[in-house]
Amino acid sequence: MTYYGYFNGIIQPTDQIGVGVTDLGLLRGFGLFDYFLTYNGKPFQWDWYWERFRHSAEKMTLTLPLSREETYAILLDLLRRSGQPGPVRRSGGTADVAFRLVMTGGYSPDSISIVKPNLLILSEPIHPVPAEQYEHGIRVILDEYVRPMPEVKTTDYRHVMLLSGKIREAGAQDVLYHLHGELSELSRSNLFLVKGNRLITPSRHILRGITRRTVMDLARPDFQIDERPVLLSDLYDADEAFTTSSNKKVLPIVRIGDLPVGNGHVGPVARELLDRFRSFTNS
Amino acid sequence: MTYYGYFNGIIQPTDQIGVGVTDLGLLRGFGLFDYFLTYNGKPFQWDWYWERFRHSAEKMTLTLPLSREETYAILLDLLRRSGQPGPVRRSGGTADVAFRLVMTGGYSPDSISIVKPNLLILSEPIHPVPAEQYEHGIRVILDEYVRPMPEVKTTDYRHVMLLSGKIREAGAQDVLYHLHGELSELSRSNLFLVKGNRLITPSRHILRGITRRTVMDLARPDFQIDERPVLLSDLYDADEAFTTSSNKKVLPIVRIGDLPVGNGHVGPVARELLDRFRSFTNS
Repeated sequence: MTYYGYFNGIIQPTDQIGVGVTDLGLLRGFGLFDYFLTYNGKPFQWDWYWERFRHSAEKMTLTLPLSREETYAILLDLLRRSGQPGPVRRSGGTADVAFRLVMTGGYSPDSISIVKPNLLILSEPIHPVPAEQYEHGIRVILDEYVRPMPEVKTTDYRHVMLLSGKIREAGAQDVLYHLHGELSELSRSNLFLVKGNRLITPSRHILRGITRRTVMDLARPDFQIDERPVLLSDLYDADEAFTTSSNKKVLPIVRIGDLPVGNGHVGPVARELLDRFRSFTNS
Repeated sequence: MTYYGYFNGIIQPTDQIGVGVTDLGLLRGFGLFDYFLTYNGKPFQWDWYWERFRHSAEKMTLTLPLSREETYAILLDLLRRSGQPGPVRRSGGTADVAFRLVMTGGYSPDSISIVKPNLLILSEPIHPVPAEQYEHGIRVILDEYVRPMPEVKTTDYRHVMLLSGKIREAGAQDVLYHLHGELSELSRSNLFLVKGNRLITPSRHILRGITRRTVMDLARPDFQIDERPVLLSDLYDADEAFTTSSNKKVLPIVRIGDLPVGNGHVGPVARELLDRFRSFTNS
């Protein structure tokens, strides 16, 4: 199956797009991105993702070369070209895809000065989280770190990539960052703790996840939501923990560092919220 | 004039090289590099640059796809192709160039896992520092920061790029990092202070510059060299300051933050060491 992408005005198969070697994303790590899925052939929570991408660009001092409407039209074009008849919509519809927007400092005459950003809009296959991770939950290791500019979705993932060996050796799937006793987020997703009828989620040093926000909205009728600084010590009396992201949706965490969360098994609240999220995206 | 580059086995003009969109340098800022000049048609201090590049790669858990000898042969090939008769060597020789080695996490099937690094070897035009900066010295602003993994030449320059407006507004040319009262380095070059007959240079939180090392070797017969933690307070009684890098060579700093260094003019030691460096590279 061929996926298509847009790069500075041209649409072509993604594996044929070539970025020049003076790009500041490549040479200087100066880049930002966003990532979201389509459901039933429509970009999910597009308004919120666009707003976050716009905010990231602003913080990185880059001017978006396309409007919201122009970008959306390109998404639909890519979706149509990349689509194939899939099991989701049997009556001639298109399969869902992931979209990645990537903006860098652009081509530079002197390898450091920004002249005009480069914008990539890529459609990609969705890599679903294995079903057994939903069934049995995941494990995470703790790491003392906070992402620089956590509210901006930069391309800076060196830290977690250098931890990949340690994560694997621990039999874990991800890392949970903390600093000065305060928990923030996983490497690419947000954290929730469950205590009785309360959902507790860090209020700072995080990327403001769209799935986080969606899950809070879906939970609000039945749960009290505490958005506040969350301490390492909050882990000890948590009944459950889970993480949220575009791709992970609501994924239970059963072990953090050396300790089980609650009874060490996937709990009813994570299951319930995953059900609600799936129903919401199906409709 | 056409410059040539090597990318994963193929040599072509650098402006024709295209890096695919799943490259982890581009998507995740996972990259390292090195940069050096040729003098009289020969890569300067090649052994030291190669060793530093090898060390950076190791710290980034990447395996070099080429040996030292294979890389050197490619450098000479690129130099020959990129060269044109220049003013430096009138008798049919080649003009000098800059070389940039860039290695990234390579193409990734899932946008995060490393499979095989991508290696770029690029020849580039040299961008000489304007003569008036050697004559009058440069100004730098102070900034509270230390580069993550400073001993590794990663592609992570987001921090200084976001400071570029502030540097320009201050009428400065660069930034000098300090943290907890300790000075480390400029954004892309090392720091030296001069006090009488002593050269003082930070011993930690720095990239170990090849020009720094060369200048120390050239100075050693006549100066005492103190490689040690350097404090902000060391600035107050410094006679001179200068910075060293492949491209800057020995560049005087006459103002740091709000204060002049010494009498605020380029001093004799910086001039002397620049002379020695130029003589050394000419021979």
